[in-house]
Amino acid sequence: MNLKTPLMTIEWLGDRVRLIDQTRLPRELVRKETSDFREIAESIRRLEVRGAPAIGVAGAMGIALAALESDASDREGFGRDVRGAAELLAATRPTAVNLAWAVDRMLEALDDALGERTGGDGRARIDAAKARLVDEALAIFEEDRELSRRIGEHGAALIEDGDVVLTHCNAGGLATAERGTALAVVYAAVEQGKSVRVFADETRPLLQGARLTAWELAERGIDVTVICDSAAASAMAKGWIDKVIVGADRIAGNGDVANKIGTFPLALAARQHGVPFYVAAPYSTLDLGLGSGAQIPIEERDPEEVTTVQGVRTAPEGARAWNPAFDVTPAYLVTAIITDAGVFRPPYVESLGAGKDHDGP
Amino acid sequence: MNLKTPLMTIEWLGDRVRLIDQTRLPRELVRKETSDFREIAESIRRLEVRGAPAIGVAGAMGIALAALESDASDREGFGRDVRGAAELLAATRPTAVNLAWAVDRMLEALDDALGERTGGDGRARIDAAKARLVDEALAIFEEDRELSRRIGEHGAALIEDGDVVLTHCNAGGLATAERGTALAVVYAAVEQGKSVRVFADETRPLLQGARLTAWELAERGIDVTVICDSAAASAMAKGWIDKVIVGADRIAGNGDVANKIGTFPLALAARQHGVPFYVAAPYSTLDLGLGSGAQIPIEERDPEEVTTVQGVRTAPEGARAWNPAFDVTPAYLVTAIITDAGVFRPPYVESLGAGKDHDGP
Repeated sequence: MNLKTPLMTIEWLGDRVRLIDQTRLPRELVRKETSDFREIAESIRRLEVRGAPAIGVAGAMGIALAALESDASDREGFGRDVRGAAELLAATRPTAVNLAWAVDRMLEALDDALGERTGGDGRARIDAAKARLVDEALAIFEEDRELSRRIGEHGAALIEDGDVVLTHCNAGGLATAERGTALAVVYAAVEQGKSVRVFADETRPLLQGARLTAWELAERGIDVTVICDSAAASAMAKGWIDKVIVGADRIAGNGDVANKIGTFPLALAARQHGVPFYVAAPYSTLDLGLGSGAQIPIEERDPEEVTTVQGVRTAPEGARAWNPAFDVTPAYLVTAIITDAGVFRPPYVESLGAGKDHDGP
Repeated sequence: MNLKTPLMTIEWLGDRVRLIDQTRLPRELVRKETSDFREIAESIRRLEVRGAPAIGVAGAMGIALAALESDASDREGFGRDVRGAAELLAATRPTAVNLAWAVDRMLEALDDALGERTGGDGRARIDAAKARLVDEALAIFEEDRELSRRIGEHGAALIEDGDVVLTHCNAGGLATAERGTALAVVYAAVEQGKSVRVFADETRPLLQGARLTAWELAERGIDVTVICDSAAASAMAKGWIDKVIVGADRIAGNGDVANKIGTFPLALAARQHGVPFYVAAPYSTLDLGLGSGAQIPIEERDPEEVTTVQGVRTAPEGARAWNPAFDVTPAYLVTAIITDAGVFRPPYVESLGAGKDHDGP
């Protein structure tokens, strides 16, 4: 089958950013344009742009916008402006390592551009720094597209013709600059001529699976069936699922995986039924400094996300709710981690450490 | 603490039935009254009345209404009327054994009332049969209240002061004539002076946990926190949950349990974290003729329940969905089965069989 062309989740338009407002999907496809980094921060916070790699790109582009906006005429003022924006952007989502990683990389570019090594001063140096930060954001964007392509290539080798893949949340093109992570594997397998069908967990509370994954796959012409998160184990019990593939927001050095709430019970169900459980993520999602998943900060979001659905109240007024956005899947439940740098298998402490030597970012 | 008085889920008013329309909760408390068994069937089908024990009571009362409605003047015609209604009512929900059990019991009462053994003929005999069927429905109702009370008593012995109980769906007063099954255990423990808090899975797709359990517990003054189904494993990983208690729609002779979709992954998570997993149900929920849960028919409901929430569309138009209403939890994940006839522990093939001898219905 022929895959239809992907839509661009986020784009740089020279002096502004255009992104798909994912909170409006699947009802309508609306793009927002802005040259204000504060609006980018707001878009990240409101999940208009979401998915660990995509918010890394958005964060970098936000810093580039802040650089363009700055009217400081000296290094100190310019650095202050950019660093202030970086701080605001980095604080929007605490769990995804990609955002912190992209912000750090932009700040390194800033230091480099403003450093003693570079010539000139005043206006010229600041203009050069602005250009350098835009280039760095674009490089992060292009690298993200390339990462997705490579994740797809490495992962597709694990997919057989006729496979049914179950996925959680949206680790697709909408979660990255273009092709996604988990879904990049599906797209690449389909491009290789394999027939692949997908079961998509709806993914409460924010329904990224029902709203985004089902929409994105249907848009690209791939057969998709939506299920409640709690029905995944039953689909496996029926023998319908050949592989589970999910994304990741952060992976500890021992292979523990932080990903959308509901990933951990899915991994338990996969192990129960002998279904391979794959995590697909950019190598930059690895946080090798963390010894285990217990050290990953887990964002807790507004309880209203649980007590309402798409604005409709489901629980009684005043009901208390607990709303962790992510959970941690222990490494021993993960069959393999598919990255742009290759496929890593247990024991992860060794394989991931080895990976760092040969192909890390 | 003092428990507030429970509301009556379903009541017999002499010539008609009054029930709480649970589809309107938690927004408004609306009661429906009808003397038409067809409306009872529709209420069961539309889940206005739901929960295995409650629909058993509703089915029995529906048959009593059909008996009162019949204007047949001979045994054959009256039997035909009642049997026709019984068939319609029994077909509304296929998984819960209680409905089939209650209908069968009503038909036995019918046979008995119309049998050769009973005297008279024509009008008098039919009037006597009508009275007998009303009495039988009321007996089923009263027995159900008594069952809940006994389930609560047996289960409360397992609860310690300060326990946090996680439950799924609504196995409370709203699922039975009065106190419930899983929640009857909580109510009884609280009446014994124990402090108990509850985590309620919201229970997609129909949100009985968020809508009904949270409402019912709050109404009775018990502390409740709503979570997404997929967050239960994380709550256990945090060490917050002392016990899981769920209801059951049907239990096979080997102890396999059919209950609301999402029960099975919850049991997997409980085992992972060493949390006791209890099933609370009337002894009549046992279907000892079934060798295993694989023989329990699993109702699949309208995919629209998955692709919409409370009438709001969440998945793209035309998206395919799979919507099993129940799943099967293998017996080896079940710590104990709490019934009105006592608490049964593994190996269930032996303990449940033994239970039948001494105290079964």
